[in-house]
Amino acid sequence: MKSYLEMTRAELLEEKAQTEQELEKIKALSLHLNLTRGKPSPLQLDLSMDMYDLISSKSVLRTQAGTDCRNYGSLDGIDEAKRLMAGFMGCEQEQVIVHGNASLSIMYDTIARSMTHGVAGGVPWCRLDKVKFLCPVPGYDRHFAITEFFGIEMINIPMHEDGPDMDFIEKLVSQDEAVKGIWCVPKYSNPQGITYSDETVRRFAALKPAASDFRIYWDNAYAVHDLYEDERDELLPILPECEKAGNPDMVYMFCSTSKVTFSGAGISAMGMSHANRERMLKQMSVQTIGHDKIKQWVHTRYLKDMDGVRAHMAKHAALIRPKFEAVDDILSREIAPRGIGTWIKPKGGYFICFHALEGCAKAIVAKAKEAGIELTAAGAPFPYGIDPKDSIIRIAPTFPDLEEMKQAAAVFACCVKSASLEKLLNN
Amino acid sequence: MKSYLEMTRAELLEEKAQTEQELEKIKALSLHLNLTRGKPSPLQLDLSMDMYDLISSKSVLRTQAGTDCRNYGSLDGIDEAKRLMAGFMGCEQEQVIVHGNASLSIMYDTIARSMTHGVAGGVPWCRLDKVKFLCPVPGYDRHFAITEFFGIEMINIPMHEDGPDMDFIEKLVSQDEAVKGIWCVPKYSNPQGITYSDETVRRFAALKPAASDFRIYWDNAYAVHDLYEDERDELLPILPECEKAGNPDMVYMFCSTSKVTFSGAGISAMGMSHANRERMLKQMSVQTIGHDKIKQWVHTRYLKDMDGVRAHMAKHAALIRPKFEAVDDILSREIAPRGIGTWIKPKGGYFICFHALEGCAKAIVAKAKEAGIELTAAGAPFPYGIDPKDSIIRIAPTFPDLEEMKQAAAVFACCVKSASLEKLLNN
Repeated sequence: MKSYLEMTRAELLEEKAQTEQELEKIKALSLHLNLTRGKPSPLQLDLSMDMYDLISSKSVLRTQAGTDCRNYGSLDGIDEAKRLMAGFMGCEQEQVIVHGNASLSIMYDTIARSMTHGVAGGVPWCRLDKVKFLCPVPGYDRHFAITEFFGIEMINIPMHEDGPDMDFIEKLVSQDEAVKGIWCVPKYSNPQGITYSDETVRRFAALKPAASDFRIYWDNAYAVHDLYEDERDELLPILPECEKAGNPDMVYMFCSTSKVTFSGAGISAMGMSHANRERMLKQMSVQTIGHDKIKQWVHTRYLKDMDGVRAHMAKHAALIRPKFEAVDDILSREIAPRGIGTWIKPKGGYFICFHALEGCAKAIVAKAKEAGIELTAAGAPFPYGIDPKDSIIRIAPTFPDLEEMKQAAAVFACCVKSASLEKLLNN
Repeated sequence: MKSYLEMTRAELLEEKAQTEQELEKIKALSLHLNLTRGKPSPLQLDLSMDMYDLISSKSVLRTQAGTDCRNYGSLDGIDEAKRLMAGFMGCEQEQVIVHGNASLSIMYDTIARSMTHGVAGGVPWCRLDKVKFLCPVPGYDRHFAITEFFGIEMINIPMHEDGPDMDFIEKLVSQDEAVKGIWCVPKYSNPQGITYSDETVRRFAALKPAASDFRIYWDNAYAVHDLYEDERDELLPILPECEKAGNPDMVYMFCSTSKVTFSGAGISAMGMSHANRERMLKQMSVQTIGHDKIKQWVHTRYLKDMDGVRAHMAKHAALIRPKFEAVDDILSREIAPRGIGTWIKPKGGYFICFHALEGCAKAIVAKAKEAGIELTAAGAPFPYGIDPKDSIIRIAPTFPDLEEMKQAAAVFACCVKSASLEKLLNN
């Protein structure tokens, strides 16, 4: 097969005619498939249902230390849950606060408190003329929604295969006191599936920020979400590295079981230095008496420890790996030889990130919609929804079943061809 | 028995000698009882344990509308839970947003968003020189902690037997644009157990605030927490009254099942006008994808409807009523005839509020502590922890068992006598 980039105009026109025929056939099928969000499939959710066989009217809902999980209290969570979530983040149990059903809410609350009360005795951000966050792109749209909501200026940071551009980050962080944070998804990044290298993690830990209230917002959402048991990415735990570098307070880590047990009905946690933790708990005590300890109890009884988590995640992997591979196969066959798109084959996480020819992403998403495939809006993985090159499309293979995913990937490939041909013919 | 206020100095001295002997005997018992917080007892928590027999690996966790409760989504909660919580608040299902495990967090978040983003298009409060809240006193310490945390000035409003002083409220609210809110616990108020009269509710609904972003923060924490089935207080639902008065947006209502099922592991909700609700959901969408729908599912299956809730609450009442009555009996016998304290015998809620002679509350709490009884700090039910008359003590009878409660009440009465005698003798 010949790359479109090497084709003559006549060849491109012929290809276009064929592709349009293909698209017409697809439209006649009246498909309705949704690839927009990183949601687990019903079969994945079925995997954790036996958790509810561990709790009944006969259960003694007490912790090992004797705390009654049914009553008020334990602002930082029960010890069993702190221990479990420490394993997700690669830190000590004493560095953890267990929260409610969503790590997103912890991140939002952390930013919200920084706005009204500042970070570690610093000036509340709402009193500053300008607050800036660094945003590795493409990234997670809900991170950017939080910073946008609070009027924080976002600066795009390019991503490389070993993590974000550290030269650029080091420069901005050390020179500009208005830079107060950076959003990171360090393992199987959303949406590219990139895991930060040890070198990248160490450079993060060694940052010398101009602002004393600068923090790294380390959202380890896919900490245990490997697709392959024998070929998993290993992320260097950042908190110990920050400690070694003399920057123990510089990182806030977040994680959850949203894609381990139930989405929106799991538990979440934050990991951080002792000093950060004490400050956080003091502020949190105004907001809540404590999070749901019964859910913490049942989650820790069910998942037990990191071995239990890994064993459980292997079941998830068995369900979703074929879908990721189907997308990879179809793109490898239909797109790669035509030279009209690239992607990283991820070893985990929830997404495949497609890099189209520049200026084609919006057109591809629009064509897919016409063909019955709902994709995440082009631009969504960027601050303010603006992809400067209009080239990134996030594909979420987990929710549809395998046959649907194969069909959707084929339609997607056809739309990529069609949009790419239009671009090349109009140039 | 003679009132202390009518005793001669010699009689008071004789009484003091006797009381001190009593106190010495009590101290010799080395008691350790805690009456500080409004926590349900383990037996109360046992009442709801069969809720967990309604969920197992075999459960189909779908709503009637077909939503999978195990996956992301439903920012405002599932319909079944909205319907249930509407019953708590006396409003329509369409006026409800179901939240997480704590109404306290909803209140905090509502204030926090008002600080950073304003209310309904108004100026964010963090940009104003002064924001004031009205605080009926005595009141709920955690309300005051929220407003204090955000630097909001709190103004004490006296409570009467039919609710807060409406003349004073009408004056302040209509004249001062800096007054942005008022904290209310309208039924079985914390700590006095007062239910606002229909007239009070109607005057609230008809307020004419100077500030367009003024809101009534209506924390109906004890909506269904009656002690007597045949003699319950009825609270007029405020939202319909606000609608009639042309002020539909003026009230935010809050409630939860924290003291119905499990404390910190129940569900909570907010009720409000359509316009308020739309604004709230838009802001909430940045903070969370949705709250725990599995918990909503199991709660609605368990409690079913308001009849189910009333039947369940009757079981709570049967457990806690004897404790409230024991306190009332002992105070009626030991304190009332001596003229050294008053209280309202509550028909529901979680507290008995003792009004000691002026200047005696701190001394009573200190004496109780020496005698092995931990009481809520004197002053706690007031903004900034300052009781201007040093006379209010909140007693929380629910957590200890009946015998402990009787013992604690007797010790408390002895401490009241002792502190009152010291005051009278020093005058």
